[in-house]
Amino acid sequence: MEKQIGKQSVRFENPPYIVSSAAIVGQKEGEGPYAKFFDEILGDDKAGCESWEEAEGKIQEMAANKALSKAGMENKDIRYIIAGDLLGQLMASSFGLIKLEIPMFGVYGACSTMGESISIASMLVDGGFADNILAITSSHFASAEKQFRFPLGYGNQRKRAATWTVTGSGAVVIASKKMAEKVNMSDKNKVHITGITTGKIVDLGVKDSMNMGACMAPAAGNVIIRNLIDNGRKPEWYDKIITGDLGLVGKDILLDIMRSKGYDIADRYMDCGIEIYSREQNIQAGGSGCGCSATMLAGYILKMLESGKWHRVLFVPTGALLSPVSFNEGDSVPGIAHAVVLECGETEV
Amino acid sequence: MEKQIGKQSVRFENPPYIVSSAAIVGQKEGEGPYAKFFDEILGDDKAGCESWEEAEGKIQEMAANKALSKAGMENKDIRYIIAGDLLGQLMASSFGLIKLEIPMFGVYGACSTMGESISIASMLVDGGFADNILAITSSHFASAEKQFRFPLGYGNQRKRAATWTVTGSGAVVIASKKMAEKVNMSDKNKVHITGITTGKIVDLGVKDSMNMGACMAPAAGNVIIRNLIDNGRKPEWYDKIITGDLGLVGKDILLDIMRSKGYDIADRYMDCGIEIYSREQNIQAGGSGCGCSATMLAGYILKMLESGKWHRVLFVPTGALLSPVSFNEGDSVPGIAHAVVLECGETEV
Repeated sequence: MEKQIGKQSVRFENPPYIVSSAAIVGQKEGEGPYAKFFDEILGDDKAGCESWEEAEGKIQEMAANKALSKAGMENKDIRYIIAGDLLGQLMASSFGLIKLEIPMFGVYGACSTMGESISIASMLVDGGFADNILAITSSHFASAEKQFRFPLGYGNQRKRAATWTVTGSGAVVIASKKMAEKVNMSDKNKVHITGITTGKIVDLGVKDSMNMGACMAPAAGNVIIRNLIDNGRKPEWYDKIITGDLGLVGKDILLDIMRSKGYDIADRYMDCGIEIYSREQNIQAGGSGCGCSATMLAGYILKMLESGKWHRVLFVPTGALLSPVSFNEGDSVPGIAHAVVLECGETEV
Repeated sequence: MEKQIGKQSVRFENPPYIVSSAAIVGQKEGEGPYAKFFDEILGDDKAGCESWEEAEGKIQEMAANKALSKAGMENKDIRYIIAGDLLGQLMASSFGLIKLEIPMFGVYGACSTMGESISIASMLVDGGFADNILAITSSHFASAEKQFRFPLGYGNQRKRAATWTVTGSGAVVIASKKMAEKVNMSDKNKVHITGITTGKIVDLGVKDSMNMGACMAPAAGNVIIRNLIDNGRKPEWYDKIITGDLGLVGKDILLDIMRSKGYDIADRYMDCGIEIYSREQNIQAGGSGCGCSATMLAGYILKMLESGKWHRVLFVPTGALLSPVSFNEGDSVPGIAHAVVLECGETEV
C-alpha cells in the first residue's frame, strides 16, 4: 500500500492508536463548559512554582505523568517524547520534561504544535521506529502574555478579535497495535490515527497579531481542502471537522473560504478555541495556544470518539507564526495548520 | 529486521541517502580555514535585508534553493521541510522558507537541531512517508547576540569559555534509494544515513550561559556512549566522531567523561565549533549555533566521506537549552545531543 497520498497527505498502513490521554488545565478553563472532561484543574495557575514559565513546565510534567499512569506505563516504556510550546526556545518543554529522562524531539508550529507532534509521532510508530510515543504540548496565559504582549499589570484593553491563551497541557500516548492490545483496549474504544495532512506556511499578509484567527484561517482552509482532495473525500465523510483556535473571527473567515471553494462544512465544524470558554467568561474571540487544541483533544474529543458519538474526526490544530521580534519589526503573521484523521469504531470505507 | 536498536538507537532498513547539500556562510566564516568548502560566502552579513532576523531567513532560503538546484530538484519534488533555528518561535525558518511552499515541520533542539532534523527526516524516508526531505537549520551571530546576550553596540567583553555564533545555514536533501539513483549518484559517492541515536535532556546543574561547552558535554558523552552500546561498537568503528559546538572547554570535558567511562576517542574526535574558525580570529572557545554543525556537515564532512577519506562518521550536533527568560530566572542550562551515523563507500560490517 502506498503511504503517500496526494500532495500532502499520508495514510497509515498500521494506524497507530491513542492508548491514553491527559489534560491538565488552569482555573479559567476549569470554570468553562468543558471542566468535567479535564483530568485535573489547577487550584493555582502558578502550580506552586516561582514563575509562570516554570509553572507551564510543571503542567507539562503533570500531563505527561498522568497520561503514562492512565496507560499503565512507566517512563522506560516510552521511546520518544515529541513536545512543544509557545515560549522562546521551547522553555516549558525543555525544563518541564527533564525528569522523565526520555529521548526527546522538540517541535514548534505555534498553536498547531499538537498537530505536528501527533503527525510525526504517528509516522514514527507506523514506520516501526517506536512502540510508544508521548506527544505533548502546553501553553499558559500569563507566560504567553508576558512574552508576546503586555505585562499583565498594565491591565491593557483587549481587542474584540483577540484570543485568550489557554493555560493547560494535553498529552497523548500514541502506540502500535501490539502495544494497544497490551493495555487491553477493546476494539470499540480504540481511537486510531488513520492519516495526516501536513500544512505549508500560508501568508496572506495579515499583520494584526491581535487577530490571529484571521492570520490562521487561510492555512486551516488550505490543509482541510488538501485533506479532502488527497483522500478523495467529501466533508460529510467526517462527523466533525475541528480546528484548534480560530476563534469567532477566524471561524467566519474559514467557513467563507471553504464555501468559496465549494465546500460547506458549517454543519460539522467546531473550533476548540470557541468551545473551551463560555461567552460569559469575557475572553473576546475565544481561547488559543498549543494547550487549547491539546487539552480539548485529550479531554473531550477523544471521549466523544470512544463513546461512539463520533466515528471520524478531522482534527486541525492551527498556528500563527509570530515572535515578539517579528511583530515589532512589522512583519506579517503567517499561518500554518496540520490535520490529523482520528477514527474509532468503524473501519475505512 | 528490527529497526529499534537498544534503548535509544535506530538502524535503518533502507538507509536514506544525502543526495545534495549546501552551505551558505557569513563573512567571518568565509575568512576561516574551511572557506573553500562552503557554497557561498556572504559579502554582507545582512544579506541585503533590513534586519538580522530577516537576513537569517534569507540565508536559509539561499541554502534551501542551492541544495535543491544541486540535486536537480524543484520545490514540488520535496515532500517535507524539517527546519529550525535558534530564534524565538523559529522566526528565521518560518519567514525564510515561506516562498518554498513545501509542507513544513518546525523543530527545535538548540544547536543540536540539525541532528534532530536529520534524524526525523531519515525515519520518515526510511519509513516510506517521503521520497525527498529537506533538512535545514541556521544561526546568525548578530540575531543570536541580540536575542540571548548583549546589544552589539555595548562592545562587551567576552569570557574565554564563550563561543561565537556561526552566521550560516546548512541544508541537505535526504532521499530514498530510488530517488538517489534518479539523481545519478554513483555507489562510490553515496553518503547514506545508517542509523541514529536520539538524546535525552541532561542537566548537571551548570548555570553559566557563557560556557555552553560545559553545559553540553555531558549530553554529548551520553548519546555517544549510548550509540556505541546500542550498536555493540567500539569508537574505532568510526573514522571520526564529530560534535557540533562544544568548543575548547567542552572538548576537554567530553574527552574526560568518555575516558572515565572507559572510552578513548581523542584520536578520532573533532568538533565543528573548534574547526570552523582559526585561533587567530579571536573567537574564544570556538563557533556555535545550529548553523555551525550544519554548515560544516554540508560543506566539509560530506565531502570527506564522498572523497573516501573517511568511511564512517558519527555526527553529533550538541545543544544548550536556554532562553533569555530561563537564564534571567536563574535556571541551569541543560544539554541535549542527537547522533547520526553517516557512511559512504563501505557497507555495514
